[in-house]
Amino acid sequence: MKLLSPEELEARLRQIGAERYHRNHPFHHRLHGGECSKAEVQAWALNRYYYQSMIPIKDASLIARCDDPDVRREWRSRLSDHDGDGMGPDDGGIARWLKLTDGLGLDRDYVASLRGLLPGTRFAVDAYVHFVREKTLLEAIASSLTELFSPVIISERVAGMLANYDFVTKETLSYFDKRPPQAKKDSDFALDYVKRNAKTPGDQQAVLAALEFKCGVLWSMLDALAYAYVSPGHIPPGAFVPEGK
Amino acid sequence: MKLLSPEELEARLRQIGAERYHRNHPFHHRLHGGECSKAEVQAWALNRYYYQSMIPIKDASLIARCDDPDVRREWRSRLSDHDGDGMGPDDGGIARWLKLTDGLGLDRDYVASLRGLLPGTRFAVDAYVHFVREKTLLEAIASSLTELFSPVIISERVAGMLANYDFVTKETLSYFDKRPPQAKKDSDFALDYVKRNAKTPGDQQAVLAALEFKCGVLWSMLDALAYAYVSPGHIPPGAFVPEGK
Repeated sequence: MKLLSPEELEARLRQIGAERYHRNHPFHHRLHGGECSKAEVQAWALNRYYYQSMIPIKDASLIARCDDPDVRREWRSRLSDHDGDGMGPDDGGIARWLKLTDGLGLDRDYVASLRGLLPGTRFAVDAYVHFVREKTLLEAIASSLTELFSPVIISERVAGMLANYDFVTKETLSYFDKRPPQAKKDSDFALDYVKRNAKTPGDQQAVLAALEFKCGVLWSMLDALAYAYVSPGHIPPGAFVPEGK
Repeated sequence: MKLLSPEELEARLRQIGAERYHRNHPFHHRLHGGECSKAEVQAWALNRYYYQSMIPIKDASLIARCDDPDVRREWRSRLSDHDGDGMGPDDGGIARWLKLTDGLGLDRDYVASLRGLLPGTRFAVDAYVHFVREKTLLEAIASSLTELFSPVIISERVAGMLANYDFVTKETLSYFDKRPPQAKKDSDFALDYVKRNAKTPGDQQAVLAALEFKCGVLWSMLDALAYAYVSPGHIPPGAFVPEGK
C-alpha cells in the first residue's frame, strides 16, 4: 500500500461507485425501465422507507461522536433535510417519502409500523447505523459518499418511472426533487473531508473499504427486494404481501 | 395481551418455528433434495462459515452481560463446543466447518478471510450479534431458541446431502455429528430459562419477537444465497465467484 494523492484517492472512490453502486443492480434497471409490477414498486417504496427513516438517526449518531463543531454544524443540515423544520407542512425527506407510499396506495400506518419490512432490509440498514456508530469518524463520513453517485440514479429513476408507470405522478415522486442539490452539497463536503483527513495508506484503505461497505448496504437491499418480489417471488414469512399475491 | 402459561408460551414458540424456521426455505429443500450445483453448495458453506465463526462472539457477548454465575457457567459450554478445547486436533465446531469447506474444494484461507462473503450474510449475522449485545438478557437467550428446531433440519440435510451429492462424504459432514445433542442440551436450558423468566405479557411478547427475529436472520441468509447463486444468479460485486461462472 502506498500513499495516494488526494486526486488518486478520489479517482479510486469514483471507481468503486462505477463498479458497486446500486445503479448497476438488476432491480434498478427493472424499476426505471418500466418492467416492475405495481406490487414490486410498492414493495420497493415500503422497504426503502426504513432506510429513509433511519438516515437522521445515522446522521445524529455521527454528530454525536464528532468533536469538531465545524463538522457538526455542517452535518446538521442533513437532519433538517430529512426531518423537516417543523414549520408549516412537513417537507422533510421522510414526510415526502410517505407521500410516495401514499401515492402507491399503501396504508401510511402500515408502512411506518415497519411490520411488512423484509428482514434483509432491516439488517442492511441497521448495519449502516452500527457502522457509523462503531467505526472511526473518518470511515463514518466516507460511508456517506454514495451520495456522490445519487444525482445520476435519481434522474434515471424519476424519468423512467414517470414515462413507464401510469400509477406514478410527478407529485408522488416529489421526494426526489430536492435530493440532487442536497446530495451534491453533502457529498462535496464529505469528499473534501476524506481527501484532507485520510493521511496514511491505512486511512485511505479504510475510506475505500467504507464506501465498498456502503455500496453493499444499498446493493443487498435490492437483492432482498428482488428475491422476495420479482416473479416467481419468495416472500419471507411476515413480510408485506401485495394485494392479489 | 394476556399472560400465557409456561406451556402456552412454549407452544407459541414452537408455532413460530413451524412457520418461520429456515427448514421451510426453498434453498433448504433444494440443498437436501439434491438440486444444488456444487457451486451452490460451495457458496452455502462459505457464507455459513461466517455464521459459525461469529457464534462464540455472540455467546461471549451474552455471558459478558449476565450477572448470574449459574447461567454464565451453563452458557460457557457453547464456547468450547465451537472453539474447541485446544488439546489435540481442533475438534470445535468452527474447525469442523472448515473441514466441510475443505471437502468442497474451497481454499481455507480464502474462506476464513471472509473476502467472498455476501453482504446479506454479513449484515444478518452481525444483526444477531448486535441483538444479543443490545436487547435484554431474556431476549438474547430467547434468540438462541432456533436450536429447538435444528436436530430435525440437520438430519434432513445430512441424509439428503449424502444421498444426492457425490462430492460430499460422511467425513466432510462431520460438523453435524456432534450438533444435535449439543443443540438439545442448549435449547432445553434456554427454553426452561425463558419459561421461568418471562413473567409479564410484555416479557413474553419480547421472547416471541426475539425468536421471530432470529428466524429472520437464518431465513435472510438463505434469501441472499439463493438470489446470488441459484440460476440465473445475481452475484454481487466482490462476492465469491465459483469456478466456471
